[in-house]
Amino acid sequence: MSNIRHALNVKREDDFAKWYQEVIAAADLAEESGVRGCMVIKPWGYGIWERVQRLMDDRIKAAGVSNAYFPLFIPLANFEREAAHVEGFAKEMAVVTHHRLIADGKGGLIPDPEAKLEEPLVVRPTSETIIGDAMARWVQSWRDLPLMLNQWANVVRWEMRTRMFLRTSEFLWQEGHTAHATREEALEETHRALEMYRACVEEDLAMPVIAGEKPENERFPGADETWSIEAMMQDGKALQAGTSHYLGTNFAKAAGIQYQDSEGTQQYCHTTSWGTSTRMIGGVVMTHGDDDGLRVPPRIAPHQIVILPMLRDKPEDEAVIAYCEDLRAALADQWSMGEKLRVLFDKTPGKATAKRWDWVRKGAPVIIEVGPRDMEEGKVAMLRRDRLWNADNGKPNMHFTPRDEFVAAAAALLEEIQISLFEEARARRDANITRGLTQWSEVTDFFASNGKYPGWVEVQWAKPTGDALEKVVEQLKGEKLTIRNVPRDGEPVDGTCIFTGAPAVERILVARAY
Amino acid sequence: MSNIRHALNVKREDDFAKWYQEVIAAADLAEESGVRGCMVIKPWGYGIWERVQRLMDDRIKAAGVSNAYFPLFIPLANFEREAAHVEGFAKEMAVVTHHRLIADGKGGLIPDPEAKLEEPLVVRPTSETIIGDAMARWVQSWRDLPLMLNQWANVVRWEMRTRMFLRTSEFLWQEGHTAHATREEALEETHRALEMYRACVEEDLAMPVIAGEKPENERFPGADETWSIEAMMQDGKALQAGTSHYLGTNFAKAAGIQYQDSEGTQQYCHTTSWGTSTRMIGGVVMTHGDDDGLRVPPRIAPHQIVILPMLRDKPEDEAVIAYCEDLRAALADQWSMGEKLRVLFDKTPGKATAKRWDWVRKGAPVIIEVGPRDMEEGKVAMLRRDRLWNADNGKPNMHFTPRDEFVAAAAALLEEIQISLFEEARARRDANITRGLTQWSEVTDFFASNGKYPGWVEVQWAKPTGDALEKVVEQLKGEKLTIRNVPRDGEPVDGTCIFTGAPAVERILVARAY
Repeated sequence: MSNIRHALNVKREDDFAKWYQEVIAAADLAEESGVRGCMVIKPWGYGIWERVQRLMDDRIKAAGVSNAYFPLFIPLANFEREAAHVEGFAKEMAVVTHHRLIADGKGGLIPDPEAKLEEPLVVRPTSETIIGDAMARWVQSWRDLPLMLNQWANVVRWEMRTRMFLRTSEFLWQEGHTAHATREEALEETHRALEMYRACVEEDLAMPVIAGEKPENERFPGADETWSIEAMMQDGKALQAGTSHYLGTNFAKAAGIQYQDSEGTQQYCHTTSWGTSTRMIGGVVMTHGDDDGLRVPPRIAPHQIVILPMLRDKPEDEAVIAYCEDLRAALADQWSMGEKLRVLFDKTPGKATAKRWDWVRKGAPVIIEVGPRDMEEGKVAMLRRDRLWNADNGKPNMHFTPRDEFVAAAAALLEEIQISLFEEARARRDANITRGLTQWSEVTDFFASNGKYPGWVEVQWAKPTGDALEKVVEQLKGEKLTIRNVPRDGEPVDGTCIFTGAPAVERILVARAY
Repeated sequence: MSNIRHALNVKREDDFAKWYQEVIAAADLAEESGVRGCMVIKPWGYGIWERVQRLMDDRIKAAGVSNAYFPLFIPLANFEREAAHVEGFAKEMAVVTHHRLIADGKGGLIPDPEAKLEEPLVVRPTSETIIGDAMARWVQSWRDLPLMLNQWANVVRWEMRTRMFLRTSEFLWQEGHTAHATREEALEETHRALEMYRACVEEDLAMPVIAGEKPENERFPGADETWSIEAMMQDGKALQAGTSHYLGTNFAKAAGIQYQDSEGTQQYCHTTSWGTSTRMIGGVVMTHGDDDGLRVPPRIAPHQIVILPMLRDKPEDEAVIAYCEDLRAALADQWSMGEKLRVLFDKTPGKATAKRWDWVRKGAPVIIEVGPRDMEEGKVAMLRRDRLWNADNGKPNMHFTPRDEFVAAAAALLEEIQISLFEEARARRDANITRGLTQWSEVTDFFASNGKYPGWVEVQWAKPTGDALEKVVEQLKGEKLTIRNVPRDGEPVDGTCIFTGAPAVERILVARAY
């Protein structure tokens, strides 16, 4: 396979971080904006996000959650109310202090000293406190519960070191916020959201995840429980792709979210919050990308099939264009995975071969080329992005298929690609979780000797808390490791704590992480 | 009709401004957030916005425009570059000056003096300058043109006096930004966007508008031409519901958006921008609302048909629920105006009559009630929100219809309501535009003597510029009047300028406005 000339300059195995940056650029997903820590999401990247939004939003609405919109700005006082929340979020936030600019007399602009806000406003890093205020107004009686809200919005968390999609000062997300009468109902919702995330990320993004509870030290500031879905990237690192929090009555007490129960007693609500963000797109890149660029799972591909005409500036071009247009219309009329096919007939100027490689790098699932000869023979030349190369001859694996046969099979083909991408990622993930280590030295040896991309280890522990947990966290930190989560569907314990030797109470996943 | 007891406390004719606030509250659209000038958009209001977004977005994509996302924060320097743009926007904007908070030692939080930004950032009031930067990077040659982008985003313009949906410090909108090789192509795009807005607002929001060019004094800061669509509210005031700007090469020169033409010469692009916002929802309220609340046009109604079961806490409730669920499923399987019907079976606790009035105030187009007797007779009781009252007896105009007949006719009924709301608004608008005034004194008399809701006047003028225009603007201002636009499809002139007596060159609409 050494004779394959890949479409990117950097290979995953040579420099994964550099490869990631190259995919982002080569697939035209996003770029630096020039504004510190903020990226521009370009049309292909945003198109993928729109698909993720649509599919996630359908799931959110199907669960009976209503979308709404809350202010971008949050008064400082809101952050002062919930102690743990201040501690966790008050640090790196964008603060608005003025509401007007004036000329500085030297051709520039400055904040107008006359227009200083009495109380600075924070650009939301998350909306628990401002939505909590609304919940306190909206909830009076048990009849108003559950109150289930979701918001699609931008949020800002000032970041010193940024990485596109994975860690940017501004990012896009959805945040669900719900209020319930009882702990049980709130916990049920926490788990429903977690399971919704698992299903969406696995079925739509084709990204296998492990759902589980975060250890105490990784909890959301102010939460009683934090659950996550964790995906394994191709460098073996973990990416947290979504979180769901049970907030107990902490935020309800801070904001005064109370209801009168059926016996007339005032009670505090139990609340939850759950979120996923544009970070998932970074996960898609590091899960499905290869040395030729991105491979977009069909369900989230803005265009699932791209048709490229091979034109020669000759009179017969017209017939090729008509043939392609007819093909586009026939395909666009098919249904796959519950939706009409998304088909692009790309007539932009440029050679078909150059355009083919653009779409390979962008990761369109299926690329079709049509030249005069194909047309005469009633065929199409078809390239599956997920099986790009013919290993025997080092050339692109181009299939020549009768046009009608291709149209009839297109819907099933997309479904097959969707499943195949998921299975490939799952097999890789499963092959890279190492179990059975029982001594801390085995863990350090494993990460020291297992190459650049060692994967994850699953070990057993006694679930220490407080100072004992802090000690474990420090010990892991020394090896650049973190506890990802306690898998929800894990095996029962059968050993001792790898840190203390005490009887184990649960299994944890330990990994390097984004 | 005096025996009708309306669902609101305030009538339009008594106090329009107060009525507007009551509809916003009674229809559960939005509320004050407690954060200065920012509102919370509640689920029913946001659901309407989501419908508008979906329908507008389909139109935007169909025109070949791509969605993308640009930073919330804009460096000050961007605003300093385009002189007219600074002048117009630099005044009331939210300015971020710090990126961290610290404890003040007294239990509160303050911006950390150590974390002052070197250059303050502005929360975008609009994105011409930041998108211009991206265009300058993306456009190299004529082959890259046209570049057509759109963004759905929140923007902030600090407002001293706010009014929900109409004027809030933060609002939601879409902003299209395009770059073209020539003036002609950019002007064509300016008009395409304007026409798209006209079609969407008239066909989807059922709000009749007049498309036309804004006079010089009302141009967007930095634009060569500004076009708008203007709708008439029920108090006779005008609401600008969307604008489309031809920016010439002004922003291209400020940001350096250049392309190499086919002969190898560097040229500046001609750019456009166009926007519509949540303001349109305020327009829907003031166009279709009545003394019983809102009436939502079916195309933008989150639920088009709401089914209310009449339950009595008796064993036969179960059969009623099953009958309703079956009805819901049968309706949800129908198509109307190109989409599946959106049907809600509202099983929340509460009496059917109270719930009926909630849905009347919210403006669901069709309300269905089903009680045990209706079920036995295979009927439904149907209320059309746009024809709520029986004028003869002052009671709700409830129709009893065989269930199958109703299901078969539901799609056509919704279409009829959509058209009927539009026609009603258009007839009222047309009846309230007064033409033929030729003297300024006639205009002042008209607005002085024509009651609280005088409507608009169409007059002819000589299209003065500079100081002469300024004088006219002041003259109008004295009567609280503004020039709305020069109707695109207006009649030719046949008289003299109402301000100067010189030969007229065009017709203008003059009105009080939001």
